Amino acid sequence: MLDAPKISHARFITFEGGEGVGKSTQVKRLLQNLQRHSIEAIRTREPGGTPKAEAIRSFILQGRSESWGPGGEAVLFAAARLDHVNQLIAPNLRNGTWVLSDRFHDSTRAYQGLTGGVDDKLIAGLEALALDGHTPDLTIVLDMDPDAAFKRVAERAVEDGLQVSGDRFEKEEIEWHKRLRDGFLRIAKDNPERCVVISAAQPEETLEAAIWKAASQRFPELLAGSQA
Amino acid sequence: MLDAPKISHARFITFEGGEGVGKSTQVKRLLQNLQRHSIEAIRTREPGGTPKAEAIRSFILQGRSESWGPGGEAVLFAAARLDHVNQLIAPNLRNGTWVLSDRFHDSTRAYQGLTGGVDDKLIAGLEALALDGHTPDLTIVLDMDPDAAFKRVAERAVEDGLQVSGDRFEKEEIEWHKRLRDGFLRIAKDNPERCVVISAAQPEETLEAAIWKAASQRFPELLAGSQA
Repeated sequence: MLDAPKISHARFITFEGGEGVGKSTQVKRLLQNLQRHSIEAIRTREPGGTPKAEAIRSFILQGRSESWGPGGEAVLFAAARLDHVNQLIAPNLRNGTWVLSDRFHDSTRAYQGLTGGVDDKLIAGLEALALDGHTPDLTIVLDMDPDAAFKRVAERAVEDGLQVSGDRFEKEEIEWHKRLRDGFLRIAKDNPERCVVISAAQPEETLEAAIWKAASQRFPELLAGSQA
Repeated sequence: MLDAPKISHARFITFEGGEGVGKSTQVKRLLQNLQRHSIEAIRTREPGGTPKAEAIRSFILQGRSESWGPGGEAVLFAAARLDHVNQLIAPNLRNGTWVLSDRFHDSTRAYQGLTGGVDDKLIAGLEALALDGHTPDLTIVLDMDPDAAFKRVAERAVEDGLQVSGDRFEKEEIEWHKRLRDGFLRIAKDNPERCVVISAAQPEETLEAAIWKAASQRFPELLAGSQA
């Protein structure tokens, strides 16, 4: 039995955006679409992705009551990302396997940097250390008005049988999520060579098609014959 | 019963230098000397110093077989230091208690920065984050030729009943420790306003007296009447 020849240049694709915009669903759908095109691919997520990075993740979360603050979080996420890149992302890419990540460094930029106020230069230094040249080839920024995203999160909670105390949220919380959204949009604007903003306020199937289109435009090899 | 008036400006003193130069002994001796002068003081150490920082410490050490590398260590030590400063050092200083630390940020500069090759700017950014203005008022750099320090470490091991395979060390290891020593000396040279280099190749009592002299020159309040 012959192995299919490996595509020499595997791609690294990240999904970014606020909470409730549907990132994890779309990561799974893109993975399936790549596999239908006979492309070896894996999906991962941040924070986490490797045992050590997951340990840092739970380490950050367990201390929630006495918070690390945005600076401490940025530093700990960088340590976790360093391991994620070294142990999982880089070896797979080297091996010809595409990597899809549900969140990556732009989340640190948006949450701890632009929204949390951590110094730009420190954020850039941590990125240089943790990424070690593994900047994503494509970043899909899923964009949605925070009010709509909140409504989706609440609906999902109800579907899961959770009790939800109305769909009204604190004004400050909404304001914070609006700043976060602006952060992701600014990152996309500053990095047009790799970022594509796609409205997440559309049905899952339509969104899936829009993401596939964006990926195909970026990576012409996806236009070659599908085995689906 | 009247409380003694607190000294308004508590001092933060760090001890730095390579392994085997006698830092922890001298930290204890300076603590006793301060207390003899009725100065409230505590001693602490890095890596560690608080429960969270100790957790990061063991977290780094447990992963030794698959190392974090100097960059990952620098980042994790910064997270630990942030907690150490916030939870222990800053509150004590605010409260008028002097703080003596066996190693602090200069160890990251020397080990991960100057010797490990981590980018200067990242080291500086991590310092700005973790120290949050709490630069030591005085840093005692205990200096010793690595060959002599190794001999001391070996002698101590023998005293502890450990078997020591001769006092000859790998040439590369000695070279590394010489670079580390040069790193600490360079830090002292670049920061003359707070660093004092003292030869550690002298008897404990003489060294103790030299450290007390350096501290008294820096902090005139130590020349005021002793209650010893």
